[in-house]
Amino acid sequence: MTGNGSMLVSVLDGPGQLRTEHRPVPQPGTGEVLVRIRSVGVCGSDTHYYREGRIGDYVVTEPLVLGHEPSGQIVAVGDSVPAKRVGQRVSLEPGIPTPTSAQTLAGHYNLDPQVRFFATPPIDGVFSEYAVHPAAFCHPVPDSLSDDAAALLEPLSVAIAACRAGQIGLGAKVFVAGAGPVGLLVAQVARISGATAVVVTDTRAERLEPAARYGATGAFTATDAPPAGAPFPGGGYDVFIDATGAEPAVIGGLHRLAPRGRAVLVGMGADSIALPVPLLQSRELVITGTFRYANTWPTAIELAASGQVDLDGLVTSRHGLDDVKAALEAGGQPGALKAIVTP
Amino acid sequence: MTGNGSMLVSVLDGPGQLRTEHRPVPQPGTGEVLVRIRSVGVCGSDTHYYREGRIGDYVVTEPLVLGHEPSGQIVAVGDSVPAKRVGQRVSLEPGIPTPTSAQTLAGHYNLDPQVRFFATPPIDGVFSEYAVHPAAFCHPVPDSLSDDAAALLEPLSVAIAACRAGQIGLGAKVFVAGAGPVGLLVAQVARISGATAVVVTDTRAERLEPAARYGATGAFTATDAPPAGAPFPGGGYDVFIDATGAEPAVIGGLHRLAPRGRAVLVGMGADSIALPVPLLQSRELVITGTFRYANTWPTAIELAASGQVDLDGLVTSRHGLDDVKAALEAGGQPGALKAIVTP
Amino acid sequence: MTGNGSMLVSVLDGPGQLRTEHRPVPQPGTGEVLVRIRSVGVCGSDTHYYREGRIGDYVVTEPLVLGHEPSGQIVAVGDSVPAKRVGQRVSLEPGIPTPTSAQTLAGHYNLDPQVRFFATPPIDGVFSEYAVHPAAFCHPVPDSLSDDAAALLEPLSVAIAACRAGQIGLGAKVFVAGAGPVGLLVAQVARISGATAVVVTDTRAERLEPAARYGATGAFTATDAPPAGAPFPGGGYDVFIDATGAEPAVIGGLHRLAPRGRAVLVGMGADSIALPVPLLQSRELVITGTFRYANTWPTAIELAASGQVDLDGLVTSRHGLDDVKAALEAGGQPGALKAIVTP
Amino acid sequence: MTGNGSMLVSVLDGPGQLRTEHRPVPQPGTGEVLVRIRSVGVCGSDTHYYREGRIGDYVVTEPLVLGHEPSGQIVAVGDSVPAKRVGQRVSLEPGIPTPTSAQTLAGHYNLDPQVRFFATPPIDGVFSEYAVHPAAFCHPVPDSLSDDAAALLEPLSVAIAACRAGQIGLGAKVFVAGAGPVGLLVAQVARISGATAVVVTDTRAERLEPAARYGATGAFTATDAPPAGAPFPGGGYDVFIDATGAEPAVIGGLHRLAPRGRAVLVGMGADSIALPVPLLQSRELVITGTFRYANTWPTAIELAASGQVDLDGLVTSRHGLDDVKAALEAGGQPGALKAIVTP
Repeated sequence: MTGNGSMLVSVLDGPGQLRTEHRPVPQPGTGEVLVRIRSVGVCGSDTHYYREGRIGDYVVTEPLVLGHEPSGQIVAVGDSVPAKRVGQRVSLEPGIPTPTSAQTLAGHYNLDPQVRFFATPPIDGVFSEYAVHPAAFCHPVPDSLSDDAAALLEPLSVAIAACRAGQIGLGAKVFVAGAGPVGLLVAQVARISGATAVVVTDTRAERLEPAARYGATGAFTATDAPPAGAPFPGGGYDVFIDATGAEPAVIGGLHRLAPRGRAVLVGMGADSIALPVPLLQSRELVITGTFRYANTWPTAIELAASGQVDLDGLVTSRHGLDDVKAALEAGGQPGALKAIVTP
Repeated sequence: MTGNGSMLVSVLDGPGQLRTEHRPVPQPGTGEVLVRIRSVGVCGSDTHYYREGRIGDYVVTEPLVLGHEPSGQIVAVGDSVPAKRVGQRVSLEPGIPTPTSAQTLAGHYNLDPQVRFFATPPIDGVFSEYAVHPAAFCHPVPDSLSDDAAALLEPLSVAIAACRAGQIGLGAKVFVAGAGPVGLLVAQVARISGATAVVVTDTRAERLEPAARYGATGAFTATDAPPAGAPFPGGGYDVFIDATGAEPAVIGGLHRLAPRGRAVLVGMGADSIALPVPLLQSRELVITGTFRYANTWPTAIELAASGQVDLDGLVTSRHGLDDVKAALEAGGQPGALKAIVTP
Repeated sequence: MTGNGSMLVSVLDGPGQLRTEHRPVPQPGTGEVLVRIRSVGVCGSDTHYYREGRIGDYVVTEPLVLGHEPSGQIVAVGDSVPAKRVGQRVSLEPGIPTPTSAQTLAGHYNLDPQVRFFATPPIDGVFSEYAVHPAAFCHPVPDSLSDDAAALLEPLSVAIAACRAGQIGLGAKVFVAGAGPVGLLVAQVARISGATAVVVTDTRAERLEPAARYGATGAFTATDAPPAGAPFPGGGYDVFIDATGAEPAVIGGLHRLAPRGRAVLVGMGADSIALPVPLLQSRELVITGTFRYANTWPTAIELAASGQVDLDGLVTSRHGLDDVKAALEAGGQPGALKAIVTP
Repeated sequence: MTGNGSMLVSVLDGPGQLRTEHRPVPQPGTGEVLVRIRSVGVCGSDTHYYREGRIGDYVVTEPLVLGHEPSGQIVAVGDSVPAKRVGQRVSLEPGIPTPTSAQTLAGHYNLDPQVRFFATPPIDGVFSEYAVHPAAFCHPVPDSLSDDAAALLEPLSVAIAACRAGQIGLGAKVFVAGAGPVGLLVAQVARISGATAVVVTDTRAERLEPAARYGATGAFTATDAPPAGAPFPGGGYDVFIDATGAEPAVIGGLHRLAPRGRAVLVGMGADSIALPVPLLQSRELVITGTFRYANTWPTAIELAASGQVDLDGLVTSRHGLDDVKAALEAGGQPGALKAIVTP
C-alpha cells in the first residue's frame, strides 16, 4: 500500500478529464478478498467513457474509476474466506450478480438486472492499486500465465461467450468481422472449437496481419469481394460473428450466412441496423447478441494456460496509473491491439 | 373429371388478370397420386401475386395457377404407390424437396434450394379440379376433419413451425402481433404448447374478437399501451411472434421481451426493420424467421382432429373456381379471416 | 408460537421411532424469514426414512425432523428482507444451494454438492410449527391456492422437472409408468406441455382411476399388453417417464420408445437396472434421471393457480403433528394418494 | 473389369466360410454410379459376421459379401447423374435411406427402419471389384486423401457422430474407454472439437501408445486407478464415450462423470449393463447410444484433408480380395489397428 493505507487511483471526472488521487485502501467484507492489482487491460468501453462521458444510458455524473479487465494478487481475506488464499495470483471476473435473481438462478448471471460491474456508473473500476472483490469471482491462475494474460481473460471471455452463442462446433464455417482484440480472440476460439474455416475481415488491411496467428484460415479487407480462393464461394457460412458494431459489416455478414446460419453481434456502436427481414426468413437465420459472459473463466484459464490462445501477444503498450490517458488513447496508433495499465 | 379427361383450372395471366381454362387431367408418375381437389385455402401470398404479379424475386411471367393450401381425395395412383390409397381423403403438403440436398438430409427440407412449391413461379398451384403430387406428401386425414380443415392444416403448419422456432414450452409468456389467421393459430398452438400467458394485439380492434377462442389469455389494440391488467407489466415476455410483417409491430414486440427472449418473424411485408442492436445485446435476445415448415403435418392433423384447434371456425367465405377473384379479394371484408376455394 | 417461544416438532430417532418434542422457535437471520407452517405433504422419502432409517448413503444417526413439502405464512423477517413480506402466504422450496458453486452459477442449483435440503440428514425438515428459510426460496402464492396446494407445489415441481428433462413438447407421445402422485402430475404436466398422447400404466388397476382427470389419454394395467386401441401399436413413444423405480417398468418403457425417444427415470427404488444396450444404440435412445428440480416454482404456481393442475384433488388424508406416524403409513391404504401433515 | 464384364467378389457362406467368385459387374440405375472399389476398411462387425455368422437379429442365411468402408473411383453413371462425375475419386457412405420416412425427413436418416446398408443381411457389401451406389452417397474426395483414408472416413464418421451425441465442445473434459480405431478417432475428434482434456483408457497397455498422436492429453490402463496426475481427481468428466462395449468400462466411465455429464455408448458387445440408477439420478447424467451416423461426410472429409485427423496412420495391414480371411483375422495381431482390403 502507498503509505498509511492509502492507494493511488485514476479518476475520470468527465469527458477527457482524468486525474489521479489517493484513496483509503478498502477492507474486504465477508466472502471478499483484497487484491493488489497487477495488470488491467484497456477496453473500448473505457475509451468511450473517457471520450464521451457516457455509454448509452450510463452517464458519468460522479467521479468514476475506469478499468474492468484486472489481474492481481490476493493480499487479505474477509470473513469466511480461507486464509490460504492470501498470496494467490488471480484474474478478477468483473461482474457481481445478486445470487437469487431469476436470471442468476437460471445460470445467466450476466443478465441479472442488479449486477454490479466494474467501471460502469456508479460502480468504480480497477485503475487503482487495490480492489475488494468477492472471493468466488477472483479466479486463481497458474504461474504459467503472466499478469497481463490473467487480465486478458476478460476479453477472452467475451470471445468464448460469442462462440458459445454462435454454437460454433466441429466443422463450422465461421465468418468474423473485425480484427481487433475481440475479433482475433473470436477467430482463435472458433478455430479451437472445431471450426474448419475461419475467415476474418477488417476495413483496415494492416489489422489482418495477426489473423493467421489467431486461428484464421483466411482473411480479406472488408471492401474487397471475398478472394477467389475463399472456401465457400457458392455456399455460405454457418456462423457470423460481428466484432465491429458497424452496420455495413453486419449486413454483409448476414448475407454470407448459409440457411440456418447464426449471427452473433458482439461489437458495439450502431444503435440500429436495417435488418433484411426476407433474408432472415428465407434462410431461417438466427441473430443474437451477447452481453458480457457467464461461466467462462475456467475454460478461459485452460485455453490460455495450455498455450492454445496467446494473450500476451495482444499487448502492444503498457502504462502506469499516472499515464492512463495515454493508455486510453493508444488504440489510435497503427498496429495497436491492447494497452495495459500496470498500477 | 370434366368430360373427356379435361379439368377446369383458374389461371393468373398478370396483375388482376384471372380466367379459367380447361386443361388435361395430369397422370400420376412413379410415387405420385392424382388428387381430386376439394378445398383450397386462400393465402395472403395468393392475393399478393394476384395484385402485384410478383413477390420479391418471384415474378409471374407465364400463366400461373394460384393456391397452395389444398385438400382432396386420391382418385388414382402411380407406380409403386399402394392401390389401397385410392379413395383416401388427404391434405397436401405443398412443397416437394429434392431428397438428397444437404438441407433435406439435415431435416430442413423446407430450406432445400430446389424445393418445388405450389403457386410459386413457375410451379402451378391447385386452384384446379385435380392435381398430381407425391404420395408421401399427401397426408391421410381422419373423417372427423372436414375438407376445409384438411386444407387449413397448411396455415396451422405455419403456426406450428413458428411456435417451434420460438421454443414455446411449459410456462412461456408469449406475445403475438397480428390477429389474422396465422396470428390466431399461433396463439392457439402457443397455448397448447404450455404457454401460461398468450397476449394478442392487432391495430384493428375488431380482429381481436376471436382471440380468446384461439387461446389468447389477453388482447389489446396495438396502438394502446398494454392494459393495466396485463400480466407482466414490469417483466417481459419469453417469446414474441410477429404475424404482421409491419415494422412498428416488430419493434414493439422486441421491446417487450425479457432477457433471453426469442422473437420469431413470420409475417411478410417489411423489406427491412431498424433492429435495435443495444437492446438485442443487453438482453441477449434471439431473433429468427421461419420459412414455411417441415415435419409439421402429423402434429397438425392430431391437433385438428382432437378438436384442440378449430380450423373450420376460421372459414368466412367459400367460392367456386369461377369465382376465385372474389376469393382473392375477400380479405378486405370486415370480419374476414379465411376464404376457401372449392373446385 | 406454542407458549413462550417454543414450538412442537415431530422427531424421528430411528426406524419406526417417532415422537414429538418442544423446541425453541428459531430466529430468521439475514435474508431469511420465519414461517408458520400450515401444510406439509408426505413424500415417499419421508416414509422410507421412517421405515429404514436411511436412504442410500444418507443415514439417520441423530434425531431428524422429517417433511420437505411445506407451505405456510411468513410471521417475521430477518435483516435485509422487506417488512412487507410479513403476512405473505408462501410455498417453501426446500433446497438451499450455495450461491457460487459451479453448478449453481450454471443454473443447476439442485446439483450443487453443498445444497442443504429439508429432511435430509443432518438437515431437519418441517414437520414442525415453524421454520426459518431464505426469503428467496419462500415463494408467495395467490389466495386462490389452498395451503395444501401450496405445499404440493413441491411434487408438482418434480413433475415439471421430469417433463422438462424429457423435452416434452407439442405433439409428443408420452408413456408414464406409475400412477402415484408424481406419475399423475407428470401426466398432467405432459398434457399441458403439448403432448397429444399420454398413456399411464400401473400394476394396480385401481390406481389408474384418477388418470383421466390428470391428463391421461389412455391407461392400462402394467401386466397387460397395451389395449387394442392404444394409439401407436406399431410406432413408439417419444418420451417415457418412469415414476415407479421398478426395473420391469423401466425396461418395458424403454422398449416402447420410438427412435430418438427419451426416457426420464424419476422413481426411486432400483439400485440398478439391466440396460438393454443394443436397443439404446439402434434407436439412439436418450436416458436420464432427475434430481429434485431447479427454477420450477414460478411455473408451478401458475399451473396450480390457473386450475390447469388440481393439487387439492391429490389429498386423501390429513394429520396433526402428533399423528405423523399415521401420515407416514397412510400410503398403504387403498386409494391413498397424498397424506398431509398440518402442524 | 475382370474379363467380359465380370468381377471378383469375396463371399461369406457361413461362419468361417469365405470364398471368391465371379459375378457380373452391376449396372448403375437412375441416380446411381458404378464405382471401381480401391480400398475397404475392415470393421469389427465384418469379423463378427465372419466368426459367428450373425449379429443379433441379422443372420447370414444366404451368401453375403462383407465390407462396408469403401472408397473407389466412379467409372460409369446412370440416368440423371452428370457425366462429369466419371473419374471422380469417392468415399462411399454405406447406408441408403428411403427418402420419405419420418426419420429421414427429420434428418435422422440413419434411423430409417428401411435403410439399406452394405454388408448387413441380405444386403451385400463391397469386398468386390465394383459396386453400384447412389451418386448422392458417393462423396468426392480431394487428391490429398489416399484411397485408404477415403475408406476410413467411415470410422471417422462413427467418431464424429459419437462426439456430436456427447455434445463435446469448448472446454469439455472427455473420458474415452477403448483405444482401438474408433476410440482413437473419438479422442482426436474430441480434441479438435475443443475438449481441453481427453483421457483414454484400455485394458491393454500397449494399445495406448498411439493415443497421444490421436489427441489424448492423458492415458492409463483400465485396471489402474487414474494416475496421480489425472486432471480432475476430485471433479469429473463432462463426457464419457465408450468404445469397448464392455460392462466394466461403461460402469467405470459413468462413475467418472460430473453432474450433468453425458455418456455415449458406441462400442458393441454387451447385451445389457447394470445401470446404476441412483448415480444417474443424483448427477442427472444423460446416457445415449449412437447408430452409425448421418450428415458426417462433409466434415469428415475436411478433417482428414486438412491433416487434423491422420487416417493413414491407422492402417496396419493390407490384403487382396483373395486374402480377406487374413484381413478379417488381422485384428488379433499385436499392434493391429485397421486392416484394409484392396480389391
